[in-house]
Amino acid sequence: MSAQQAVSSNDILLRDERDGVVTLTLNRPAQFNALSEEMLSALQQALDDLRDDEAVRCVVLAASGKAFCAGHDLKQMRANPRQEYYQALFAQCSRVMQGIVKLPVPVIARVHGMATAAGCQLVASCDLAVAAESATFAVSGINVGLFCSTPAVALSRNITPKHAFDMLVTGRFISSSEALSFGLISRVAPDAELDDAVAALTAEICAKSPVAIRTGKAMFGRQRSMSLEEAYAYAGDVMACNMMADDAAEGIDAFIEKRKPVWKGR
Amino acid sequence: MSAQQAVSSNDILLRDERDGVVTLTLNRPAQFNALSEEMLSALQQALDDLRDDEAVRCVVLAASGKAFCAGHDLKQMRANPRQEYYQALFAQCSRVMQGIVKLPVPVIARVHGMATAAGCQLVASCDLAVAAESATFAVSGINVGLFCSTPAVALSRNITPKHAFDMLVTGRFISSSEALSFGLISRVAPDAELDDAVAALTAEICAKSPVAIRTGKAMFGRQRSMSLEEAYAYAGDVMACNMMADDAAEGIDAFIEKRKPVWKGR
Amino acid sequence: MSAQQAVSSNDILLRDERDGVVTLTLNRPAQFNALSEEMLSALQQALDDLRDDEAVRCVVLAASGKAFCAGHDLKQMRANPRQEYYQALFAQCSRVMQGIVKLPVPVIARVHGMATAAGCQLVASCDLAVAAESATFAVSGINVGLFCSTPAVALSRNITPKHAFDMLVTGRFISSSEALSFGLISRVAPDAELDDAVAALTAEICAKSPVAIRTGKAMFGRQRSMSLEEAYAYAGDVMACNMMADDAAEGIDAFIEKRKPVWKGR
Repeated sequence: MSAQQAVSSNDILLRDERDGVVTLTLNRPAQFNALSEEMLSALQQALDDLRDDEAVRCVVLAASGKAFCAGHDLKQMRANPRQEYYQALFAQCSRVMQGIVKLPVPVIARVHGMATAAGCQLVASCDLAVAAESATFAVSGINVGLFCSTPAVALSRNITPKHAFDMLVTGRFISSSEALSFGLISRVAPDAELDDAVAALTAEICAKSPVAIRTGKAMFGRQRSMSLEEAYAYAGDVMACNMMADDAAEGIDAFIEKRKPVWKGR
Repeated sequence: MSAQQAVSSNDILLRDERDGVVTLTLNRPAQFNALSEEMLSALQQALDDLRDDEAVRCVVLAASGKAFCAGHDLKQMRANPRQEYYQALFAQCSRVMQGIVKLPVPVIARVHGMATAAGCQLVASCDLAVAAESATFAVSGINVGLFCSTPAVALSRNITPKHAFDMLVTGRFISSSEALSFGLISRVAPDAELDDAVAALTAEICAKSPVAIRTGKAMFGRQRSMSLEEAYAYAGDVMACNMMADDAAEGIDAFIEKRKPVWKGR
Repeated sequence: MSAQQAVSSNDILLRDERDGVVTLTLNRPAQFNALSEEMLSALQQALDDLRDDEAVRCVVLAASGKAFCAGHDLKQMRANPRQEYYQALFAQCSRVMQGIVKLPVPVIARVHGMATAAGCQLVASCDLAVAAESATFAVSGINVGLFCSTPAVALSRNITPKHAFDMLVTGRFISSSEALSFGLISRVAPDAELDDAVAALTAEICAKSPVAIRTGKAMFGRQRSMSLEEAYAYAGDVMACNMMADDAAEGIDAFIEKRKPVWKGR
């Protein structure tokens, strides 16, 4: 399937699938792709649908229009001035962000224009992020009297605390090159070559063994919060298991025989 | 109040307050502002006084003379060669460092000259740090046979372990640009523009909602040691509460109406 | 003793000791110093022998031939296709890596050529790393269908998560300058000056108090996983104890008297 499809009844989130690469495109360009309740629901549904899809190799999170994502939908938030509403909204948003982390395959943010507040959190929550040179990043809730607390959770697990806190407390924009040096994104491309850079990265991932990629994504996230000793015990077991996969046998044999491996995906 | 005042009976620590910005100035220039017992007591007292002062928006930690701070007062330490004395001294110093972390408002180090040993730890302990281009940083206790163990606690929570350990084990000085790229400081300014850069940062902070800034500082520090799931649950509650503040309503309305917000501070 | 000696019956690991600096040289150049069972045993034995050697000041981990280390011995692994074998192998390797971390003195990787997979993990596991400008680093197991799970444990404790995951999932090589900015290594030298740079670093370490260096290495690793409060309590006690050492008294007196300290090593 290669045609773009809407995930939900309206078309606020587009889904395209091509050779194992699923691209989810935020599609509220006039609202800078703000994360309304409906957008968060559509994202959650798309992530839920991807969880058990063995054919998917990686996911690209992209956006329509001038900006990647401007964060929460402030008008909708102000129209519902109840604490329980906000608690439910931030819980819903946090589920989406953790859904990206828990997805069995790598999720790549394709960032152009600006990524602000929860939009910056989306970038931080992805496993990898490729940005256009002109892209800018901010956690700018502080400018409207709302400290970006949930974005801070993701941001502070990507970049050093002083750089994170400076961004959070001033709301200032950083460039893609600062974002790269801080570790918020993993690659930068000239604006005109952004799609090529994303395609090169997804092609690299698709050229690897699916079982090794899925094994790696799951173990990488889990081991981070363990002690060194626990992490090694866990990683050693994971790797021994990975060695028993047909793909590891094939990959090593191909390497020794100086030929290209043919993955069986198991 | 805008005149500089001494916090304690002597003038080893100066306090200046101007439009909500409190500047604490280490003032033992002949001793490179070494952290004697008396200096630590004065700092602790100043932090304690600030804790419940609702008028304060942010704190600048500055220093008189040629250096920011050369760390502990080695002469005083050698004059008291008892283990209990040292334990009490390091406990006192650690309370001051954690007092900076726990203060309800952001603390900004204004760094010129050298910041060494516990002086470098002061910089690491602040939420933000603006340094003059010519400023240098070292954890140089190792040169006198005393590994900078307590400074290592703060340093290793700011920069990557190999960069930290290299500094700790060699005592070498790093430049302000290295300190910026490592994450030990958040901003660098040409020497002649250091005060302007600090003033610009404090002005940025003072232009935000006080309740959002205080909410943010407290949550940022607390969530860092939590698991991702705990951190999101906590941050979501904090942010829902922040949304119920008058300032968030005003900030978002002002944003929607394209006007400047007028904070009420609640 | 200054002549190079083999640690084990064969000469896959060379040991050289000079003025307190022990250099261990991986010596299977034709196999790019692959970490066979025998190599891991020889390394474990060398680390065990060093643990109680009070004369040793620091350890350099170097390698013969064109590459630093290409990781596990894939041929040997494929010749033993049993999960228990792999579990034992990864457990053995993880013991060696943690043995570097637990060694009482600093371990410095001297990196030339390529450091891949468990070879890159060796670099990440060392306290310090000096690399030739032309050195390259990758966690390339993914190319043979085997995600570098145990290397990921060490790598993700050195560099930011997005940079680590990009390396792990693509297997791409990074340059020594990228490795330096990421924090995987602590110093870079022009190729022709690599040995001079390593010698300069070991000379710096040897010029310090042995008791302070050993105190520091042990405390630095232990405090990293503690809460801020626990870490300060622990570090304060360590530092008070360090102050009671003869070397601290001598170091501080020498500093006050503006002379060179004469360490007693206690």
